[in-house]
Amino acid sequence: MYIRNEDTICAPATVPGTGAISVIRVSGPEALTIADKVIKCSKGTIADAAGYTIKFGNIYDANGGILDEVLVSVFRSPHSYTGENSVEISCHASSYIVSSLMELLFEVGARAAEPGEFTQRAFLNGKMDLAQAEAVADVIASQNAASHRIAFKQMKGGFSSELKGMRSELLELVSLMELELDFSEEEVEFADRTRLNELLNALIAHTTKLIESFKLGNAIKNGVPVAIAGATNTGKSTLLNALLGEDRAIVSDIHGTTRDTIEETLNIDGILFRFIDTAGLRETDEVVEKIGIERTIKKISEASIVLGMVDLTRDFESTCETVSSIIDSVDFDTQKLIILLNKTDISEINKNVTIINFIVSLLNKRDIRCTLPKIEVTVGNFEQTGGKQPYSDVQVIPISAKTGSGIENLRSVLAASQRDLLADSDTTLVTNQRHVQALSDARTSLLRASEGLAHSIPTELISQDIRECIYSLSSISEGISSQDVLINIFSRFCIGK
Amino acid sequence: MYIRNEDTICAPATVPGTGAISVIRVSGPEALTIADKVIKCSKGTIADAAGYTIKFGNIYDANGGILDEVLVSVFRSPHSYTGENSVEISCHASSYIVSSLMELLFEVGARAAEPGEFTQRAFLNGKMDLAQAEAVADVIASQNAASHRIAFKQMKGGFSSELKGMRSELLELVSLMELELDFSEEEVEFADRTRLNELLNALIAHTTKLIESFKLGNAIKNGVPVAIAGATNTGKSTLLNALLGEDRAIVSDIHGTTRDTIEETLNIDGILFRFIDTAGLRETDEVVEKIGIERTIKKISEASIVLGMVDLTRDFESTCETVSSIIDSVDFDTQKLIILLNKTDISEINKNVTIINFIVSLLNKRDIRCTLPKIEVTVGNFEQTGGKQPYSDVQVIPISAKTGSGIENLRSVLAASQRDLLADSDTTLVTNQRHVQALSDARTSLLRASEGLAHSIPTELISQDIRECIYSLSSISEGISSQDVLINIFSRFCIGK
Repeated sequence: MYIRNEDTICAPATVPGTGAISVIRVSGPEALTIADKVIKCSKGTIADAAGYTIKFGNIYDANGGILDEVLVSVFRSPHSYTGENSVEISCHASSYIVSSLMELLFEVGARAAEPGEFTQRAFLNGKMDLAQAEAVADVIASQNAASHRIAFKQMKGGFSSELKGMRSELLELVSLMELELDFSEEEVEFADRTRLNELLNALIAHTTKLIESFKLGNAIKNGVPVAIAGATNTGKSTLLNALLGEDRAIVSDIHGTTRDTIEETLNIDGILFRFIDTAGLRETDEVVEKIGIERTIKKISEASIVLGMVDLTRDFESTCETVSSIIDSVDFDTQKLIILLNKTDISEINKNVTIINFIVSLLNKRDIRCTLPKIEVTVGNFEQTGGKQPYSDVQVIPISAKTGSGIENLRSVLAASQRDLLADSDTTLVTNQRHVQALSDARTSLLRASEGLAHSIPTELISQDIRECIYSLSSISEGISSQDVLINIFSRFCIGK
Repeated sequence: MYIRNEDTICAPATVPGTGAISVIRVSGPEALTIADKVIKCSKGTIADAAGYTIKFGNIYDANGGILDEVLVSVFRSPHSYTGENSVEISCHASSYIVSSLMELLFEVGARAAEPGEFTQRAFLNGKMDLAQAEAVADVIASQNAASHRIAFKQMKGGFSSELKGMRSELLELVSLMELELDFSEEEVEFADRTRLNELLNALIAHTTKLIESFKLGNAIKNGVPVAIAGATNTGKSTLLNALLGEDRAIVSDIHGTTRDTIEETLNIDGILFRFIDTAGLRETDEVVEKIGIERTIKKISEASIVLGMVDLTRDFESTCETVSSIIDSVDFDTQKLIILLNKTDISEINKNVTIINFIVSLLNKRDIRCTLPKIEVTVGNFEQTGGKQPYSDVQVIPISAKTGSGIENLRSVLAASQRDLLADSDTTLVTNQRHVQALSDARTSLLRASEGLAHSIPTELISQDIRECIYSLSSISEGISSQDVLINIFSRFCIGK
């Protein structure tokens, strides 16, 4: 496979299916004349039309019958998405019309576009850099305000200009260092080593921050992972349904129903959460379920938030066992735990209080503070024991997954837990695995250069490290990569973009 | 519910989902100013833009961030689809962007369009008549060349002008008759009764033809119904799979597997066929299966084409029984029978020939001719007995549903069977149930007028019948119907059209 840029490509740009209109994109040197071959305009030709105007015309099929009446938007190079001559043909959204029109376009010399090929051409024609082009796919895929903001900022070049700033500072210094090499016998020092050292440290900090932002950036893009953990049959599936408002998970009364993990995404306050329902944390001999439990433990470890489900109607001993195993499974340095006391609709108040006290004692032993529920008077002791700590690590929320009581409160707590992280909207969040890799490479080069500077190793070696760092940073936006890398990037796009 | 035409409506015009672009339509008196309120153009305003031009601009969200970069196609009344001022906003196809943009449009005064409301406005603004408007939905839904041609012709007003011709002839005569009434004491006869009689007869013939065309028109629109009949376990499901190329029907070796009828549609040579797999025609005591067999007989009676499946590997007696029952179940006046000799891959040639001879004798008794297969020399007698008749009522085709042998031949025979009916592309085919009803009403009035004329009943009564006929014909295209009828018609459209 190789990148072709000389021919004219076409593809439907809208989602297939029955709607009002479909749009077919044609781009390339012959786009306008090819369009004229299949569309008979009521006035003039497409080739003669000005850019940013619309022509009305008929498309005739092979038998001379009218296939459709269409509107043609005309774009002239370089003022188009791809930078090439382009048309967008707006036809009736019938699969028959769209496929017939595509065939007619093929007959007169257009070729079916590969996925992402329009954006690839925009990149090749300098309409956007590689990081911006990649963000186009993210903008399309974004399902909520947070992921949209990150992707759109990247598409508009925010990330690219940040990288460019880093690069130009490095370039300036490395040029001076290389100038020294020309005068090597004279032992001059054009590049201020103190400044270089400061710059290297600043850039190491900057790349580290960007690399670390990937965890949050990725969570925003693909959803903050939330594991729902607890003993079997504590209403985990019912909770998922209550949160989702649909019957996605299978709910049954047989212990161990949820054998596999189910993932569902949900938008809460513009933040995407990915809920992972897991098999119960019950001791079992059954092989299939054992696999499920192992998977549970793994899934819990990958989550940013753990929802520990406690069934208030179980006997005290088994409840305590579940609570202990949930608390044991959480890494409090990197994960947030929310304990849900489920089945408030049918549980006994006295037992509830005992369970809460047990949770508090367990957390106290680990020096972890928690926020307890403030509930109506009827729930008595809840108020007394809770809500006092100024800072909370663990939140305890009584709910009834069945009746939906407390679910709204849970949603607020979830949204609030992420909002702080997103507060600074100007912070760049890296969301792309390829970029993280390039930033890691850049950081490695920076560390090597910094160490070299400390040990006074020869200038040409330090300069080489900095050159490598610049190369890594450039690869993110400049696409100095091989054709294979480019093809791989654009093949993940949808057709027509 | 009532029809509102004074406000500005908006809706996505493209299919929702992840694609390259989505288009949102805005139409109404305030369309251009509303668009200006949410889109900041890079140059000038949308309200000042000429029709048939495209503007580039940014959409800002409530927090002042850029929601998207968009292209706006501007259409000025009356040169738009609806006849009103309209814009089509082309944005990135992200569900988040589309829903956010819709909300922004609502905030500045646009209202969400009802299904079909854009086309309804086109109708109300005189851009198309009712029959044309109805055809828009059919054009969008058309999945093949034949249904597309009918719908497109209707959309372009072909059917409407045919109706208009009938109406104006009637109007001329009825006016003359009503003039006579003014001179009733003088016994004048302005309207030539002989001409009136001729016209009535011609119009009765015309409406009858249109009403009868509904069967074919409907078959083309929804698929020509083809029943697959035969004994149980003769490979009917396998045939369906071979024709469809997918494993849609359940294929098993247990007799009576296909208990319910399965319908699948398939495009062959631009014609849509609707295949109805039926329960076997086997004598049975089982209740569930008995219901299936009754349904089979009913389904066979509704089909235009019956594919009679004969299992060549069965014992001779049971095969003959099946052949007889298939032939008995077909109405040769209205249905076409194709007998499929299945399992040629494993059947014995001598027995095949005996079965063919039996089929021929059975058809001969009913005076029905048949076309027999021309097969390779190895199949011996097949050639000798077949392919001689100049005209064929029944076609016999040897196939192997399992290996796919003969399936291509079957597809050609199916396509050819309908191509003749479709040869005359200028014939109007009625595809709409509402139109058939109106035509039936018109025909009833015509018959009454004709009878009245024959019995010399008073002119005012005949004139009344003709007025009613004109009313019925008008209702098809003119929409003199109540608002409820209009709302009902347009509610079947998709949103955004």
